[in-house]
Amino acid sequence: MGIENKKWILKERPSGLVKDSDFELVTESLPEIQEGEILLENMYLSFDPTQRGWLNDVPGYLPPVQIGEVVRSGGIGRVLESKNADYKVGDLTFGFVGWQTHCITKPEADDRFRVVPELLPIPTMLNVMGTTGITAYYGLLELGEPKPGETVLVSGAAGATGSVVVQLAKLKGCHVIGIAGGKEKCDWLKEVGVDDVIDYKNSNVHEELPKVAKNGVDVYFDNVGGKILETVLYLININARILLCGGISSGYDATRPPDGPNNLFSLIIKRATMQGFLVLDYLSRSQPALEEIATWVLEGKLQHREDIQEGIENCPQTLNRLFTGENKGKQLLKI
Amino acid sequence: MGIENKKWILKERPSGLVKDSDFELVTESLPEIQEGEILLENMYLSFDPTQRGWLNDVPGYLPPVQIGEVVRSGGIGRVLESKNADYKVGDLTFGFVGWQTHCITKPEADDRFRVVPELLPIPTMLNVMGTTGITAYYGLLELGEPKPGETVLVSGAAGATGSVVVQLAKLKGCHVIGIAGGKEKCDWLKEVGVDDVIDYKNSNVHEELPKVAKNGVDVYFDNVGGKILETVLYLININARILLCGGISSGYDATRPPDGPNNLFSLIIKRATMQGFLVLDYLSRSQPALEEIATWVLEGKLQHREDIQEGIENCPQTLNRLFTGENKGKQLLKI
Repeated sequence: MGIENKKWILKERPSGLVKDSDFELVTESLPEIQEGEILLENMYLSFDPTQRGWLNDVPGYLPPVQIGEVVRSGGIGRVLESKNADYKVGDLTFGFVGWQTHCITKPEADDRFRVVPELLPIPTMLNVMGTTGITAYYGLLELGEPKPGETVLVSGAAGATGSVVVQLAKLKGCHVIGIAGGKEKCDWLKEVGVDDVIDYKNSNVHEELPKVAKNGVDVYFDNVGGKILETVLYLININARILLCGGISSGYDATRPPDGPNNLFSLIIKRATMQGFLVLDYLSRSQPALEEIATWVLEGKLQHREDIQEGIENCPQTLNRLFTGENKGKQLLKI
Repeated sequence: MGIENKKWILKERPSGLVKDSDFELVTESLPEIQEGEILLENMYLSFDPTQRGWLNDVPGYLPPVQIGEVVRSGGIGRVLESKNADYKVGDLTFGFVGWQTHCITKPEADDRFRVVPELLPIPTMLNVMGTTGITAYYGLLELGEPKPGETVLVSGAAGATGSVVVQLAKLKGCHVIGIAGGKEKCDWLKEVGVDDVIDYKNSNVHEELPKVAKNGVDVYFDNVGGKILETVLYLININARILLCGGISSGYDATRPPDGPNNLFSLIIKRATMQGFLVLDYLSRSQPALEEIATWVLEGKLQHREDIQEGIENCPQTLNRLFTGENKGKQLLKI
């Protein structure tokens, strides 16, 4: 008799925040693994805003999750059985393990599964050394090219990616402005050294931003999308770099998003660049980033925090936390 | 007694299209020129959409024209008198000569005045070898990096910049789609080799564009701004480059422009870049571009046409032609 797997499959496509009834929690008995396959016991699941987009029937950078399929999600599991020479029983493995307690997969060379060294606690690795950290590292340092003394503005600054971005910007000698929702998140940002913090839930960003961005904005790392961009476009300096990393406020839901900024013309006047990017393009060369990030974490230069929910039955509600802003730091779920 | 100069000065700031009464045509007697100065007899004035922006009281990449000042405009004049060693009587000189029949200036090393060789007729030089050609050259070739077989889309394709862009893209082996207004302009675009032409005045761009951009859009050279961008964002390929060169439809007038595209999120999914640029940043290194453009013109590989109005009294109405779309090719005025 095989091992029992509990998995969430997509039942119908959600609209807005997800409901438990959009999915079904199914129990199945797993088959024997085949040549080349591994069996993982999933330990922690990672929740990222982009997962919500995969549930829509819209072509994207990855195919939509199909009705009846297990919900796609990153995570870390431990190898229980292996018929693959690259994976040993006991190896910690990162990959698209899905919303389930176990995962059978045949990792390929070009696949996104990889064995991770047990350098740091698993939640830490899923946070700063997972896609979140790699996103922040390449997005800010390679595309944003922040220079000492420049002003770096970050939206979603207390989120998983944003909180790494603000700290990397400080490490590079920049003046850093973070936008986040609520006193608790804003206090945490001040603790980790952010120079100016704007609480979008308790103040008017469009009025506050010009007051703190006294020298304009050189780099805007946008994790949320939406109307803040319009205000920022009035404040950018010559040769500013705007990095579009996420669109929590508009892009992941299938409903029609609000209109965009009416002042893209500012990109011309300021010879500025707006660039979208996906961490997937950087994963294959992420090793130097991971080593540098690990060093910063071990030296205490990079603070991080994880919001850990528990229990496979709580997957749908845990995803919603990213969109309601309830999560404090990187959203994870311990199985 | 000095030479008589007729000049248009700004009387009040216009709203929308300009009216003659926003300006005043003044006749003055010119003083003797001072050490370092030159006196030009202006021959042709160049009209560009950006000139309309200089009339608004809005900080831009150049200071606004002040009330009582002569209206700023590029053009070519011939040196009548010179007390500057770098300029000889008879030299053709390009620079911000202004809406006037004569111009006294003290050209500085970092100034935008320069002597131009009499290689081609003056209108041709003001067109393809003026800022228009340099804009097209650096914007498309250096920032857009078009590769053979890629699809290049150009709005305002029959305009001064656009008509050079489409031909450079063809010279680089691209599939070129041009958007222009009216049958006459569209026919001309087909004559110069544009693969697909969309007449925005007689068809629906949002419906037509997906039909002709069958392989998506790799480079969008946007000369007009506005809502076409939203449609293009649905069609861009991975690593697409969007170049913002102008905003005739929105950015030059001081009235509130319409909202922007609601799908900037597409820049993330497609890892695409949107970049604004100004030709001013390229003028100091424009020599290689000018030499290459001159070769193409002399070899008959680069078609061009100029729309030449006449008479200093017609400056204001000539500017409006750019915004009503009346101009056929580069808008000039012969004094």
